[in-house]
Formats: sequence, C-alpha cells, structure tokens
Amino acid sequence: MSSHVKSVRFISGFVFGSVFSTGSCLVALKLYKHEEEKAESASSTTHQLIERVGLPQTGADVRFYFNHILSYDQTHRTPRWVTEHLSDQRLLGKADRKHCRFKPDPNIPELFTARNEDYLRSGWSRGHMAPAGDNKISEQAMAETFYLSNIVPQNYENNAGFWNRLEMFCRDLTQKFGDVWVVSGPLMLPRVDENGRKTVSYQLIGEDNVAVPTHLYKVVLVQRDSSEDSRALGAFVVPNSPIGFDRHLTEFQRFSQCGLFQCSFTGEKHRKARVETDSKGKTASGCYLETLTVSNLHILLMKLVERMNSSEHSVSHQVSLRCFEMT
Amino acid sequence: MSSHVKSVRFISGFVFGSVFSTGSCLVALKLYKHEEEKAESASSTTHQLIERVGLPQTGADVRFYFNHILSYDQTHRTPRWVTEHLSDQRLLGKADRKHCRFKPDPNIPELFTARNEDYLRSGWSRGHMAPAGDNKISEQAMAETFYLSNIVPQNYENNAGFWNRLEMFCRDLTQKFGDVWVVSGPLMLPRVDENGRKTVSYQLIGEDNVAVPTHLYKVVLVQRDSSEDSRALGAFVVPNSPIGFDRHLTEFQRFSQCGLFQCSFTGEKHRKARVETDSKGKTASGCYLETLTVSNLHILLMKLVERMNSSEHSVSHQVSLRCFEMT
Repeated sequence: MSSHVKSVRFISGFVFGSVFSTGSCLVALKLYKHEEEKAESASSTTHQLIERVGLPQTGADVRFYFNHILSYDQTHRTPRWVTEHLSDQRLLGKADRKHCRFKPDPNIPELFTARNEDYLRSGWSRGHMAPAGDNKISEQAMAETFYLSNIVPQNYENNAGFWNRLEMFCRDLTQKFGDVWVVSGPLMLPRVDENGRKTVSYQLIGEDNVAVPTHLYKVVLVQRDSSEDSRALGAFVVPNSPIGFDRHLTEFQRFSQCGLFQCSFTGEKHRKARVETDSKGKTASGCYLETLTVSNLHILLMKLVERMNSSEHSVSHQVSLRCFEMT
Repeated sequence: MSSHVKSVRFISGFVFGSVFSTGSCLVALKLYKHEEEKAESASSTTHQLIERVGLPQTGADVRFYFNHILSYDQTHRTPRWVTEHLSDQRLLGKADRKHCRFKPDPNIPELFTARNEDYLRSGWSRGHMAPAGDNKISEQAMAETFYLSNIVPQNYENNAGFWNRLEMFCRDLTQKFGDVWVVSGPLMLPRVDENGRKTVSYQLIGEDNVAVPTHLYKVVLVQRDSSEDSRALGAFVVPNSPIGFDRHLTEFQRFSQCGLFQCSFTGEKHRKARVETDSKGKTASGCYLETLTVSNLHILLMKLVERMNSSEHSVSHQVSLRCFEMT
C-alpha cells in the first residue's frame, strides 16, 4: 500500500472518526443539557411548590432612616447593627434631645417591636446605638434615634459613662479624619468554664422579651482623605456592665502587636481622644468592613488579626485594627 | 350701601381672598414640596455616604437547594428555618443515605460554616432539619440535606427517637392531604426562675461555636384539595432532650381549647399518625405561614391562639392550630 493511499485512508478515518466523535459529543452534550434543564426545571417547580404558601420572614432587611441605617433583630427586639457616617460638618446643628421621646419604631411590625413598658423597672436603661448626639443636624434625624429599633437594654452606669465617652471619641475623630463610619450593636458572647465548656447566657426583659446583650461593640472606620490608603479600622468590644471613668483604654488592649492604629483614650477631665499613626506615618490600607457580620464580630476580629500576623500578607495589605476588650 | 354694592364688595373680597389664599397655599405647597425634596435628597446623599464602604451582611438571605429552601444563621452556624413540600408522589424514590456524608455547605462563606469537627466528641448528634427520608426522590436532593447548613446539634436519643417519629408523622400526612408543607428549625427559649426573671442559656460547641438549641420546632401546614378552606396548621415545639417512646403527644397539648386540628400521635408499634377534623368537619381557613418568623415561633403561636380565641374573629377566620410543648 502506497504511503499516499495510507494517508488518504488515515485522513478519511480521521475525518470520519472526528465527525463521529463530534457528533456523539454533541448528542451527549445535548442529552446532558437536556438532563440539566430537566433537573433545573424540576428544581424550579419544586421551589414554586415550596414557596406557594410563602416563606418565613427573618426581618433582617436593611432599613433606612434619615441619618442612620440598621438591620433589626426580630428575635431580640433590638438592632443587629446600626451604621452612621460622621464628619465635622454633619455634626453641627441645633436639634435637642429634650424634644425627643423613646417610642416603638412605626416601621417594625407590632408583633416584633419593643415597647417602653419592657424597659420600665427592668433595671436596664435604653441605650442608643446611633447616638442622639451625632444627629443634631436635624430634628427628624434625632427623633429617629429614639425609635426603639435603635435601642438596646444597657447598664445605666455604662450608658452614661464609658459608652458616652466612646461616642465622644468617635465624634472627635472627625477633627482628624474627613470621613468617620461607625457600626454599633449588641453582642451575645459566651462564658468559658474550667472544663472549656462555652455557654451563652442572657436575660430577656418585659412582655416582649427584649434581649439584654452581654457586650456592646463599635467598629470605627476612618479615612483621612480621598485615597483608600488613608483608611484605618478600629474595634471596641465593651461588656454591658459598669466600667468606671478612671481607666485607660490601653490597659485593655488585646492585640498589642498591631500598633498601626494607635488610640489613646483616657478618663481625663476633658475626655479628649487622640489618634496617632504608626512610626511609618501609615494608618492602614485594607478595609474589610463590607464583609463584617456583626454578630460574628468577635471571630472576625480574631481572623483579621491572624491574617495581619501571617507572613503571607505584606504590610501593605494589613488591616489597621485594634480590639479593645474590657472585661 | 345697597345690598347690590355689598354683594359686589363681598364677591370681589371673596374672589380676592380666595385667589390670595390659593396663591399662598400654592406658594406654601411649593415651599413645602421643595423642603420635602431637599430633605429626601439630603437623606439619599446621607445614605450614599453611609453605604460607601458597604453595609454589614447578616447572611439571612433565602437559599435554594434541590428539594428544600433555608435561611442560614451565621451566628449560630445552623439553619434559622428550613422549609419543604411533601406529597405522596414526591416521597417515592431510591436515593440511599448510605451514600451521603455530612459536610460543610460549599455555598456558605468558610468563616461562617460549621464543620464535622465541631460535632465530633461534643456529645451532640447532627440532626437533620429537612429529613434525609423526605428526599429519596433524588441523590442530589438527599446529599444536600447532609450539608451542615441543614443540621443542628441535637440530643442523640431525641434525634433517633421522637424527632424521627415526628418526621414520619409528617410523611404520613401526605396520605390524607394532597400538599404538606413543613418548616423546621432550632429555638432558643428562656427559662423562668421563681422571681419571674427570664434567662436564655445555650451551649456552643467546637472551634466554630455551633449553637446548641434548647428546643426544635416543626410547623406543619396541610391542604386537602385545591380550596384554601381545606388548609390546616399545626405546630410542635420539642425540647432538645430525650423524650422517650411511650408518651402520648396529647399529654402535652398546651392549648386544649383549640380543637380544630386534632392530632393523635402515639408510641404504638407501627407509630401511625392520625389526623382528624373537628366535629363540624372543618379544619381551618386562615394561614399565617407567610408571616411566620421562626425565631419568634413561640410568641407567634401564642398570639395566633389569642387571636383565635378572640370574639372579634369569626370561626371562618380562625387558624387551625395546636401547640404541643413537651417539657
């Protein structure tokens, strides 16, 4: 057999084989797609069936107010998180808290609102998450911070003392940073016994079972100018109990190895706060606020610190973070 | 002055007054609208400012699987609720749980997934919310019920015993009702001490802090035929502890006054369940499933029963409901 004939045979075999296998592939692909579509359509029919009587609502939707945004926790009858933006200009105004009254949020279904009666004689104060003092810009903005959707049961001394100082600290940051974002909310953190067993335990108050948090948090993100490089992130986890006025925040620094975002916060007469950058003049670059799930703040902070300390990440990718836990 | 002149004067005064006041109104309205628009636009600018770095995610989104739908609880690392639709035809199939393995749900961010290691040597079993046994229709459907997003830490005896019977009870309902919807999930219910103080307390297991529920619930909605009138709703709240096989569900009926949806559920040999209508042959008309927030199930059930017993609501608007609490 000449090499020419061989070639022709090879080529026709090749072509035939190719056509055949391509055909098979197409048939297989078509069958596969058909099966996939069938599965998808079966699944879609199933979903329609399941959904026909409606799905349970979690009520975790994002809710917009004049000067703050929050997600409400229907089970606890408190906010899950409340977020605000502060700047020196936006802190000005004449709205007065004397004209405001705590009241159920008219936007929350009645079944899931807290009421003033729940707090009355409970031993707990009504603690603002978005502070009234951040909302002097408008009567409406301030009035909305008195909706019980922005309130958690808070220890009286803590509310009037340490928490108030922390709120002032955040406002003072606007003197050094163009933009200040603050996320505040309640936490339910566990106690660990001598055997390592972890237990979450918290009180419910009133007929509506408003949950008393074990801790409160504030996550603070600041940006000096329009560059993303000038961002820094700080976090505070504060037990819902009396803290006192005479204690230095730095006493309670948990992650002293992360000195990028230096905060000094003392109980001095004028309760002034001071923010310093590190020796390299940097604050931070990364910002993970968008991935924050506040109920997991504690774990997230731990993970962020792990990440920060990992050699895989260069300094330029580090997050400026310090977690102050005061227990 | 003639009455004609008076009239003319009155009319011109009236017209002038009307025009003037209408004009003022229009100006006022315009000013008001302008202020309103300014406020709206100010608020929208504020929201853009607050949102610029992103908002915290709650992760409570509705998640769709082949044969079930759920909302995940990132804090507890368990489902919040899982819902399914059962019918006699859809319960058939050959998928076998022997081929399935518990595993983290690949759709949940790693930071918030539970892992098998969390359950290992914790003293708690991995309890299905959408049962494997409801998903013989497809290998994929069954495999997905083994994702840890569908699992809660459950007492071993309860899981293999009472809960299993309850699952079978739901499947048996498909013999009498064309459609059966089931919503299952964990609850954290409080204990009340002698002073009326309410405390929620629960354990966290593993490195990922998976929350051990105090109770589990199933809300069951059935529909006999295509008419909405043939719907009925039942609810079970089961403590996460051993229940035993020899107890009648009716022993634990909490709201014996609502006899519309009669369930008899005994520990007999064949574990057969029986559903009866009331003496008037009615089951129920209203259905509040769409407003269910499962974390508030307990309160919701109470409110529904209150509503049912209220003279404001006619029988035709009552919800067929019975809450079985076994404590």
